[in-house]
This record gives sequence, C-alpha cells and structure tokens, in this order.
Amino acid sequence: MKGLVVLGSTGSIGRQTLEVVRALPQRFRVVGLAAGNNLSLLEEQVRQFRPRLVYASRQGEQLYLRLREAGLPCQWAYPEEMVTAPGVEVVMVATVGRAGLSPTLAALQAGKVVALANKEVLVMAGHLVREAARQGGGQLRPVDSEHSAIWQCLWGERAEAVARLLLTASGGPFRDTPLEELGRVTAAEALRHPTWQMGPKVTVDSATLLNKGLECLEARWFFDLPLERIEVLLHRESIVHSLVEFRDGSLKAQLSAPDMRLPIQMALTYPERVDGVGVPRVDLGRLGALHFGPVDLRRYPCLALALEAGRRGGTYPAVLSAADEVAVQHFLAGHIGFLDIPRLLEDALARHRALPSPSLDEVLEADAWGRAQAEEWVRARAGRA
Amino acid sequence: MKGLVVLGSTGSIGRQTLEVVRALPQRFRVVGLAAGNNLSLLEEQVRQFRPRLVYASRQGEQLYLRLREAGLPCQWAYPEEMVTAPGVEVVMVATVGRAGLSPTLAALQAGKVVALANKEVLVMAGHLVREAARQGGGQLRPVDSEHSAIWQCLWGERAEAVARLLLTASGGPFRDTPLEELGRVTAAEALRHPTWQMGPKVTVDSATLLNKGLECLEARWFFDLPLERIEVLLHRESIVHSLVEFRDGSLKAQLSAPDMRLPIQMALTYPERVDGVGVPRVDLGRLGALHFGPVDLRRYPCLALALEAGRRGGTYPAVLSAADEVAVQHFLAGHIGFLDIPRLLEDALARHRALPSPSLDEVLEADAWGRAQAEEWVRARAGRA
Repeated sequence: MKGLVVLGSTGSIGRQTLEVVRALPQRFRVVGLAAGNNLSLLEEQVRQFRPRLVYASRQGEQLYLRLREAGLPCQWAYPEEMVTAPGVEVVMVATVGRAGLSPTLAALQAGKVVALANKEVLVMAGHLVREAARQGGGQLRPVDSEHSAIWQCLWGERAEAVARLLLTASGGPFRDTPLEELGRVTAAEALRHPTWQMGPKVTVDSATLLNKGLECLEARWFFDLPLERIEVLLHRESIVHSLVEFRDGSLKAQLSAPDMRLPIQMALTYPERVDGVGVPRVDLGRLGALHFGPVDLRRYPCLALALEAGRRGGTYPAVLSAADEVAVQHFLAGHIGFLDIPRLLEDALARHRALPSPSLDEVLEADAWGRAQAEEWVRARAGRA
Repeated sequence: MKGLVVLGSTGSIGRQTLEVVRALPQRFRVVGLAAGNNLSLLEEQVRQFRPRLVYASRQGEQLYLRLREAGLPCQWAYPEEMVTAPGVEVVMVATVGRAGLSPTLAALQAGKVVALANKEVLVMAGHLVREAARQGGGQLRPVDSEHSAIWQCLWGERAEAVARLLLTASGGPFRDTPLEELGRVTAAEALRHPTWQMGPKVTVDSATLLNKGLECLEARWFFDLPLERIEVLLHRESIVHSLVEFRDGSLKAQLSAPDMRLPIQMALTYPERVDGVGVPRVDLGRLGALHFGPVDLRRYPCLALALEAGRRGGTYPAVLSAADEVAVQHFLAGHIGFLDIPRLLEDALARHRALPSPSLDEVLEADAWGRAQAEEWVRARAGRA
C-alpha cells in the first residue's frame, strides 16, 4: 500500500485519479485530499477514501466543521505540509495554474514521487522543479497523455539516441473551420472537443493549441531536450498520443483509447502496467486509418506565441500562461472573442520585461503581472468596443 | 571493432548487411563470409572486406583457387566452424531455408550474438535454438522488420505486461485482386511487391502471407509467447512494422521507412542506435494516413495453414516451410498456379506423421520429407493436367 496525496481532487484529473485508486484497492491508501471550492464533492471523497489530511482553498473552516459533525475527523494541512507528511509516497498534482507550483517543489525536495498533471508548473518554473528534484531526490512522472506517451517510448532507450519528440494534437473543434469564421466562434462551440473529455480551461486551450504550446515547453523540462527538437503533429483521432524519433530514423509511438485514466494509472503504478481501470482496447483493424498532418500556424497563432515565449525563456512562459488563464475566463464568459485570446497574449508578451533565471518569488510576480496585464487588456478592449 | 561473420552474404539481406558495415567502418571487422553459388559477387566482397574465412556451398574449390591466384589467401571454413572461430562476436545468419539451422545452433552454443534473418531456423527448430542459447549463453537478435519492431517496443517493459503482439502485413501485391482472379495471377505479378524490395522466395511468400504465418511462428520463439497471443494486422503502407499491446490497454509501435538496413543495423549495433546507413526519415505529416485492416483468411489460406502448423507443433512447421520452398520454386517456374501453393501445403500437412519434440536430425528428416512430398504433389498434378 502506497500513501497517496491528491491535490485538486475534485477536478477532472483528480476525480479520475480516485477512480484509478478505487480500481486498485490493494495498492494505494489515500493520505490526503486537497481541492478548491467544490466542498460537497470533497466531502463525498473524504467519506469514501478516509484521508488523514484534508485541505480546501476556499471555505475550509466550513468543511472542517461539517466533517467533524459527520464523525469524520481530519487534520487540516496546507498542500505543502500534506505532500511532505509521513506515509506519503506519491503525490498527484492535479491542480491548475500556479496552485501546483509550491507543493510540487516541496514534494520533490522531500524525495517524493510527483505525478504532474498541472501543466503550468513546468511551464512557469521548469528550472526550479528540476533543481528541487535533483536536490531532494524526488521523481517526476508525466500525466498528460502526450508526455506519458513519450515517457513510455523512452523506456529502455538511451538519451543520446533521441533525435526529436513529436507531440500529437487533435487540432481541437475548429481544425476544419474556415479561417475567416474563427473570429465568430462561441465558447459553447469551443467546449465541444472532438476526441477528449476535459475541463473547460484545457478544452479552450486545445481549441487555440495554446495547450500544445505549453506541452512543448513542459516536454523540454520533462525530457531535457532543446525546444528546437520538439515538434507538433496534427493527428485527428487522438489514438497516437505522441512519438519519439531516434537518430537512426526509427520512430516509436504509444497508442491507446483517449482516456486519461490510462496515463494517470501509468504514473501511479510505474514500472508496473496493470489491468486496473479497464480502459477499452484500440482495435486498429476496425478503426481503419490514423491521420496525420502538419500544423498550420496561421490557424493556431497561440501555438506560435507559446513556442516564442519558450524560446525567450525566463519569465516569459509564466506571463503567457497566466495571461492565458485570464483570457480564457473572459472568452468563456463571452467578454472577448476567440481571436482576442492570441491578441491579448501577444500584447502581454510584447510589454513584459523578463528576468532571465527567476526565483520562485519572481516567477509568482511575473504570473501576477501577466494576470493584471490581461485584465487590463480586456478592460481596454471593452472601452474600445 | 567487433568481429562479424555473414552467412548468406550475396543474398539481399547479406548485401545490405555489408552496406551497413561499410557505413560503420570503425565498428565491425568482417571475419568470415559464406555464400551459395554467386561466386563472382562473393569474390568481389572478399576483395573489399578481406575476411580471414570464406565458404561457398557450390564450386568452392574454384573460388578458393581464384582467390589464391588473385593474392587474396583465405582460409576455407564450413559455416559451423566459421561462426565459432576466434575473434567472432556477431554472426548474421542471412541464409534461407534449412541452411542456417546448424550454424545458428553452433554460434549460440559458443555464446555468440546471432542476428537471425533466416526465418526457417526458428520455425523449424525454435525449441532447439532456445535450448542452445540457454546452454551456451548466446544471444538471439531479430532482423525481420516485424520482429525488430516488437523487440524495440519491448525494451524497458516487463514480460508480464505484454498482452498481445500485432504483426503488420502489407497484404502483398494481390491484396486488392478479386478472389476469383487469384488462380490466374503470374509469377511476374507476384514479384511486384507494393512496399518492400526483397528476394523472390520471400516476395512470393508475402503474396500468399505464408511469410506472415512463419513470422508468427518465429515470434512465438523470439518472445516466448503462446501463438494465441500473436495476431496479424493488415497495414498497407509498411511504415508501422509491428506493435505490442500491453495488459493496461496501451500499445507501442515502431515506425520507419521500409528499408531492411535499419533492422539489420539495429541487430548489429544494439543497444546503441546509430545514424549509420542514413535511412530516409518518415514524415507522417506529409504521409497523411496510415491504414489498418483485419486479415481475410479466405484471401490468405497459407496464413491459416501456417498458424495451424504452429498450433500442432512438433515437425509440422518444418514440413510446411520445406514444402513451401518447393512450391514457390515451381510457381516461379510456371509449373503450378498461385492457388496450388496452399493446396500443396494442405496436402503435405494432412499426410505428415509428426514427431512431438524432434531432435535436429528429426527436424532435417521432416524437412527432407516435406520437400519430397511437395515434389511428388507437383508431379502428380502435372500428370492430372
């Protein structure tokens, strides 16, 4: 039985993590659960998994009292304390935005295994994360289907054999929309992802391909390769989750049904593969064909901006990621259009005065600056309209 | 510098092996070359690679004298002696039919690395090959693109994680020919393989898919899995060379241009991947699509017969493989039709009285019996016609 902490337990990845745990009752004991403001679901999870430690970022006192009344006494622990508590071996970081950053650093410094689903952690502070893992002996494992695929394709291979990483992208709901109509697409349309069921923020990011840009920046830190050797390939069916090209001209690919429980399970049970959650098999003979194509950067300016932020480095990626979070919120609320997202990001990157090798505080400052800048852009636009 | 012996050096795989060696001059020293009856090419190879040991199965004396006159003194050595000679580390077995069997056993018993391209060796005597490797500490490496793909996909994986092997098959030149026309196809048509350049025997076997059946039987011994967990998948483009399905529902695939020099190089340089022969890269974005489909056994009765021979075991696979060699010769010479190949094989398997766990001599007897039986069938058919 391995002690597990789930940060962001009520989100899409958090819930699926607990499904995996339920399917493997002999393997994991949930030591801690932390969530945002979905208190009723968190309470239900506490009832079912009986963690020793609990945290909710909003209205925590209310939950604490409710759990006591219900005869479910838990200790209250901030995420940074929770992940380093005795008996914790594996930490699933399934938060979003900057929330995962400081607990990830704490867990790695304490030598824990961190299954990282929170994209922004490596995007914002990859250099700090790698340093924390080096210092504390912690282990980082990918949860994104793309990085999990690459990770699996690299097992048994030597680092010097790798030529390129090819991250696949479905292209999102607007992959076939005429370019001139992209300005008029709605939030409801953006949330209809053709192949994956995900949270709203990441679904919109999949429509702009900003998501894929963040994944390229993540991959750079996960696999220690320069950004020039990381490419994006369109793949409509979301069956091939990514590929590695080796220097001899050989490629390896990992394929499976588009079901996040599989990479989640892989991150938790590595190096064992288990038949836990029972993900449906892929029948290639019935499927018939897998399609691939180059990425048209005119259709996906956010991808180009993310790669540019990655090339510039320093605090640029943190600003990009923070500004995007605000931009997506305003797009979902109907305040700005789909094509305003790249406009907003471009403006934020252009105005930013970056620091080359930022500390954690400086990263968080850049994040705050990016958010403020994005809010400012949206206000100014409303004024113009 | 590793000492290398190439058995079957003048055939398709043998010539490509020497191309790989030429591309990696710091890595291999050719210690021995053995060939059939293409004396002029063998002489040219001797001039270029200066092996210490030479063998030709026919007209060897003539070659021996010619090489002496040319000031290229070589020692004469039978394949079994050559592969166990001092200074030999790697043996490429690129012969066809039963020719590779006894040298493979000798090399493995002597603890050598054997790169095995000769399909029939494992098909005829997989149990003896595994036993020889166990006893002598020799190492077997696949050269067929399918087995090389599976081998690569298994690196870093645990044996118990494997659910199934999926061998891909292009379907050969008659994959779209109406079933009722298959009886009239010619040898010249059978030799026009859509994706691979290979020798005539294996090209005809690729048209009947007998080839793929033999590969399933090989895979069983290479990877120690029961035949029920080895399947065939049609894949027109010959880019995905095979796949492994794991118990968690994940698949891994190896992809590359259809170029035999790549798996040859992999077998020689393992565990290193080198940019030696410069195989063209696969550009999936430009390629556009990879197609897959189930295998229709009515179109490919030879595949069904091979799998049946494999299920029965003992000397059945040796009889099948020997009878097929004769059948293909007669088809290429225009003596029998394309659909006579499965008829001949079915007849041979039906008449055979098999031995369950045959010795090497018994395997060779079954081979001889299968050949005689096939010749008899062709004579009887000529009489009927």
